[in-house]
Amino acid sequence: MADFDIAIIGGGPGGITAGIYAARKNLKTALFERKAIGGNIVGTVRIENYPGFDRISGIDLAERMESQLRQNKVEVIAGEVTGLELNGEEKRIMAGEREYTSKAVILAMGSTHRMMGIPGEKEYFGKGVFFCATCDAPLMKGKKVAVIGGGNSGLEAAIYLADMCEKVYLVHRRDTLRADEALQDEIPGHKNIELVLDSEPFEVKGNMLADKLLVRNTRTQAIRDLAVSGIFVQIGELPNTEMVAGSGIELDGRKRIKINCHQETNIGGVYAIGDVTDAYWQIVIAAGHGATAALRAYDHIKHKR
Amino acid sequence: MADFDIAIIGGGPGGITAGIYAARKNLKTALFERKAIGGNIVGTVRIENYPGFDRISGIDLAERMESQLRQNKVEVIAGEVTGLELNGEEKRIMAGEREYTSKAVILAMGSTHRMMGIPGEKEYFGKGVFFCATCDAPLMKGKKVAVIGGGNSGLEAAIYLADMCEKVYLVHRRDTLRADEALQDEIPGHKNIELVLDSEPFEVKGNMLADKLLVRNTRTQAIRDLAVSGIFVQIGELPNTEMVAGSGIELDGRKRIKINCHQETNIGGVYAIGDVTDAYWQIVIAAGHGATAALRAYDHIKHKR
Repeated sequence: MADFDIAIIGGGPGGITAGIYAARKNLKTALFERKAIGGNIVGTVRIENYPGFDRISGIDLAERMESQLRQNKVEVIAGEVTGLELNGEEKRIMAGEREYTSKAVILAMGSTHRMMGIPGEKEYFGKGVFFCATCDAPLMKGKKVAVIGGGNSGLEAAIYLADMCEKVYLVHRRDTLRADEALQDEIPGHKNIELVLDSEPFEVKGNMLADKLLVRNTRTQAIRDLAVSGIFVQIGELPNTEMVAGSGIELDGRKRIKINCHQETNIGGVYAIGDVTDAYWQIVIAAGHGATAALRAYDHIKHKR
Repeated sequence: MADFDIAIIGGGPGGITAGIYAARKNLKTALFERKAIGGNIVGTVRIENYPGFDRISGIDLAERMESQLRQNKVEVIAGEVTGLELNGEEKRIMAGEREYTSKAVILAMGSTHRMMGIPGEKEYFGKGVFFCATCDAPLMKGKKVAVIGGGNSGLEAAIYLADMCEKVYLVHRRDTLRADEALQDEIPGHKNIELVLDSEPFEVKGNMLADKLLVRNTRTQAIRDLAVSGIFVQIGELPNTEMVAGSGIELDGRKRIKINCHQETNIGGVYAIGDVTDAYWQIVIAAGHGATAALRAYDHIKHKR
């Protein structure tokens, strides 16, 4: 007899929603989270694109979701998951000093944004320093911004921001961009995008809000002082999938878990949702995934589908 | 030059979310809705499984979403869409006396639950009469309930309810069930499910809440009086896809729009979300779809992907 019907690994919006749905299906449900319930949203200053809230802080939304989770009798297990055995009908989860068993597992470990690691970055996070252009660009309408990163996500952010901002500095540490050609071809069509190549940011300055990004030319060592209201850091987003390395779960080339439209992985009874997959990384998308995965897991457990 | 970048057909939670995301991407966005913004949720008495709200009425959630939609400058066009031309780069939407053009279309027409059409059904809707077992079963823990319908959704609801209710009457108008064999095989394992075959409901009675379902045996005409707190009507859910008949959009055998994991239909630039697809019909799932479809449509319009 397994300890749980469903074990959810990760307590962001996707994992929380999966927990709410699973518990409402009367499934014995555990949610493992090593940090705070809420995941990455806890660090988000304002959210304007989660339906139902014109504007809410990440911490408030996380608290509301956590309260709902706990009302639905999900057992929250604090602590790091150190191992997973996913093959076989009964899944095994190693966490803390214990081993738990479960009939189904929902992988919801989320993602980590790579940071620049420079002074001022953490201080001004959410106050001018952002990771998500889709989420935060509307705050920057008519303003000057910088995008850090010459890969696809950097160029996508720059092109998107160019349509609504006065000026976009695209800062990249090498002399050529790394993004797909098709994206690079779009840059000349946006006269307000200025390429700042061979350049590394080394400090964010400001007062209450960020207002300056200092960059150093890696060839000449010349320093440039960019007056900007927004700095969008697009130097890499890493799905937190180290934990499933060697578990038999299939990953794609970017270390994201491969899923089908039902959130099913290649292993029966194992699902993946939100930022560990190749979906757009958005709160409401992760939440929708969580509902789908829990209902699918219910069908799997009850009806052997 | 098209009138809009994106035209969204239907203003339920999926369509609203698509609108919010599209407008935040600076796309010129129209949302067509023939009735009230909010779609089916407007008639839902209480929602406990939408993440962020322990409990909220459908009308309150709809109002909150509508306010957010309007803040994001989506043009809401009231009136029935009477025709769609989806092939070709520019899509055409006929509504009211006018024709509109758009670069992309998101189909979000929702679904209609088939009703019994008997006295008391509308009066007690949400007060004991429910359409969605996944949503409303937790209200019925330890109580006696009836499920109307011998198809897959009827049996799924009955099996699910049997785990948490004292007694489940499964009412079906014929002498044999219509559901898959695999589901029928599960019924004997639930001793608290009683089959009430050859029977048609003809009245819901109650006081403040429903407390009785009257059924008539279609062979003997005998009347039976089932004392129940909940009546789950599972006699058919129809995706509202008549509008796309003949448009070239591919449907499955149950008249749902075929999509891939990116919400893309078989026609370029045309997406489908929520209850018109084969996903689980849940608010948060439709909302997640809406975000995905809008972001995908943005990529399609801007980057020709």
